[in-house]
Amino acid sequence: METDKLTVLTIKYLKDNSKETFKEMVEELHPYDFAELYRALPEKHHFKFLTYLSTKHIAALMMELEPDMQKEVLLKLGIEKSSKIMDIMDNDDLADLLSEISEEELEEYLAAMQQDESQAVQQLMSYEPETAGGIMTSEFVWLRDYYTVRDAVEKFKSFAEITRNIYYLYVIDEEKKLVGVVSYRDLLLADMDEKIHDIMFNRVLSVSLDTDQEDVAQLIQRYDFLAVPVVDEKEALKGIVTVDDVIDVIHDEAQEDIEKLSASGKDIDFQTTASVAAYRRLPWLILLLFIGLVSGGILDSFENTLDQVVALIFFMPMIAGMTGNTGTQSLAVVVRGLVTNDIDRKTVTKLVWREFKVGIIIGLVCGLLVFLVAMAWQSFMFGIVVGVSLIATILIGTMAGTIIPLILYRVGLDPAVASGPLITTLNDIFSLLIYFGIATSLMHFLI
Amino acid sequence: METDKLTVLTIKYLKDNSKETFKEMVEELHPYDFAELYRALPEKHHFKFLTYLSTKHIAALMMELEPDMQKEVLLKLGIEKSSKIMDIMDNDDLADLLSEISEEELEEYLAAMQQDESQAVQQLMSYEPETAGGIMTSEFVWLRDYYTVRDAVEKFKSFAEITRNIYYLYVIDEEKKLVGVVSYRDLLLADMDEKIHDIMFNRVLSVSLDTDQEDVAQLIQRYDFLAVPVVDEKEALKGIVTVDDVIDVIHDEAQEDIEKLSASGKDIDFQTTASVAAYRRLPWLILLLFIGLVSGGILDSFENTLDQVVALIFFMPMIAGMTGNTGTQSLAVVVRGLVTNDIDRKTVTKLVWREFKVGIIIGLVCGLLVFLVAMAWQSFMFGIVVGVSLIATILIGTMAGTIIPLILYRVGLDPAVASGPLITTLNDIFSLLIYFGIATSLMHFLI
Repeated sequence: METDKLTVLTIKYLKDNSKETFKEMVEELHPYDFAELYRALPEKHHFKFLTYLSTKHIAALMMELEPDMQKEVLLKLGIEKSSKIMDIMDNDDLADLLSEISEEELEEYLAAMQQDESQAVQQLMSYEPETAGGIMTSEFVWLRDYYTVRDAVEKFKSFAEITRNIYYLYVIDEEKKLVGVVSYRDLLLADMDEKIHDIMFNRVLSVSLDTDQEDVAQLIQRYDFLAVPVVDEKEALKGIVTVDDVIDVIHDEAQEDIEKLSASGKDIDFQTTASVAAYRRLPWLILLLFIGLVSGGILDSFENTLDQVVALIFFMPMIAGMTGNTGTQSLAVVVRGLVTNDIDRKTVTKLVWREFKVGIIIGLVCGLLVFLVAMAWQSFMFGIVVGVSLIATILIGTMAGTIIPLILYRVGLDPAVASGPLITTLNDIFSLLIYFGIATSLMHFLI
Repeated sequence: METDKLTVLTIKYLKDNSKETFKEMVEELHPYDFAELYRALPEKHHFKFLTYLSTKHIAALMMELEPDMQKEVLLKLGIEKSSKIMDIMDNDDLADLLSEISEEELEEYLAAMQQDESQAVQQLMSYEPETAGGIMTSEFVWLRDYYTVRDAVEKFKSFAEITRNIYYLYVIDEEKKLVGVVSYRDLLLADMDEKIHDIMFNRVLSVSLDTDQEDVAQLIQRYDFLAVPVVDEKEALKGIVTVDDVIDVIHDEAQEDIEKLSASGKDIDFQTTASVAAYRRLPWLILLLFIGLVSGGILDSFENTLDQVVALIFFMPMIAGMTGNTGTQSLAVVVRGLVTNDIDRKTVTKLVWREFKVGIIIGLVCGLLVFLVAMAWQSFMFGIVVGVSLIATILIGTMAGTIIPLILYRVGLDPAVASGPLITTLNDIFSLLIYFGIATSLMHFLI
């Protein structure tokens, strides 16, 4: 936990060549802690740090590091040592790492690895990244239903190394079809001579290789599972997705929604450099810039109205702003709702109708407030123009914020690409058209 | 999984009084499935459905339902039956339920419950809701380090009922201080005669009762734990937080961030009625409405400038919009970053400096583009005014989006209350001041 203290100690041990004391310290640490320590350590100490760690510990460290640091470790270790580490790493983490390196390096590493590990990881790498196949591990322990609990525990013991993050044992039939599941708790509670068949749970929920990772996460979240089995089209067990991977999926998907809703581009965190961050944000901004210029064109076409009633300009930023705000609110409700709801025609109709009513209520309240302000400042008719425009634009804003993401979802696009800034910019255009349209048609009352 | 089919079957069994067939069907379902079934069933069947379920199944159902439906079930069951259900429910879920009902009802239920359960849940209800104490369960199994594995398994078997969602056994000393942890896996791998002392892991990470739930979630996420123990100020074990609760925390916190970033108010989902949704969204909108009117006042004060160069108006929506967009982008990066980063002076300085550079780069690119457009349309000097204004407003927008949430965080407020709409509305004001300020000072070049 106290990385600073650990770092100082580690540097001391490395300098004093106190390998034994160092090893005792490392034994008490969690993999996340070695990774923090590795990050905190000045680069000149990295190589010696790695030589002091056992192969097992380096594998645990690798699984916690980000891709850039993983590559640094591989480079420092060389191909031969690296391939030994890769043999021990969890297959799902290894597949992620290998998908980051160049084609030639990949071949060298795969050739140096144990054949079965190398084949298993190549199989995993062939699945789409954001699916059950892409996030599952192919390391699991299977049982047959005629085993006794004693057989199961024996098998479990002999595969102890790969059961670290696995919480259920899966039961398959002669065709490798998944037929049941047994938890560690079930094994502990049962007598040694009971048959697996009698203690297993039959109605196993599973996902297929191409199930979207968000759906896998939803299943685990709903049922409070620790893992979910992944089967192929013949219902043969191919791997498992564990709860720790699902937590990362939930975290990342929420992060992605926020990035898209704010049009901030992919993967910008506190460590991203300014030029990369600017490069990732610019495409959306340039698009929004040109859409924003359309607003200017609209104003230009109403120049006549503007010349006659200059006061109209003063309410323009507020009207455009409010349309954007109400649109952003609806958008956020729709985008998050799509994550947790099953969508059918009935749900959509109900939602659109609800937001319509929300738009009316909000429009009436805000319209009335602004009518009073505008009337006090100019005239009754001016108040009417501003108030009615605000009601209309808020309603349009709410509807745009609701319907645009629903249409995107319907045509198979991610609804979150209809970002707050995009909805706001589009709503600017709608609001100017309505505001100056109403003002122009009522012009003879205003002057 | 197929709720529609299940619903039809259930109605049939209820109408035919086929209690036994109904029971067989329910045995194969997960708690989440009964809850879906209960929601899908027309209300007139609810009472009979409940009478057909065992006490254990009703308790499981209750833990999946939302507060309104839980209250409906309690009402249908009556105090006596309800208190029996409450005795079986997990303490953390029960504490959440009881905090939703009225003072008098609460006393009635607590009086009807078993004394030890009632005391345990009252203790839980006394902790703050969004802390480790508020989300933990006080049902866990403890061991002493001199137990053998056989003793531990025996104790585990005798507490089988409460170990459903528990994945580790905690080892305490004579003062109830937490001294170690043993997983089910450790027990399965060990020999029956080994001492717990020899197989337990000593360096147990724990949280205290008042640790924020987000920090608990972060700990579990970092270390891939299935549960984390909660201790009081004397390091005595008081409860545990399990990974399924943490998944809900991560999900809810992301949801809250999105709600706040879009100023859409708390807790609006697809089921919320229009009037409630409008009521929750209006406070922010009315605030934004009045801030938006300030923009009008600014325009009013530049009336002279506007009269002389009407073309300035046409770029106004774009400039205001771009300032809002860049501000929203920075805001999202900062708000999400604050969730996952440990914040110190160095990190903040680095971040502000990074965003400053991002603002400069984005400002230069967008400023140049708009300079070309404005020059082509009006004049070189006009292009300079619009371009320079855009650079300055984008820089201000980026800085406002970065610094405002950081200040809120520093003074202990939630940075996400600086919503996208708020930043956008404030940035409208800044952008108008800068744009017309620059235009006014360069007026003699423009006319």
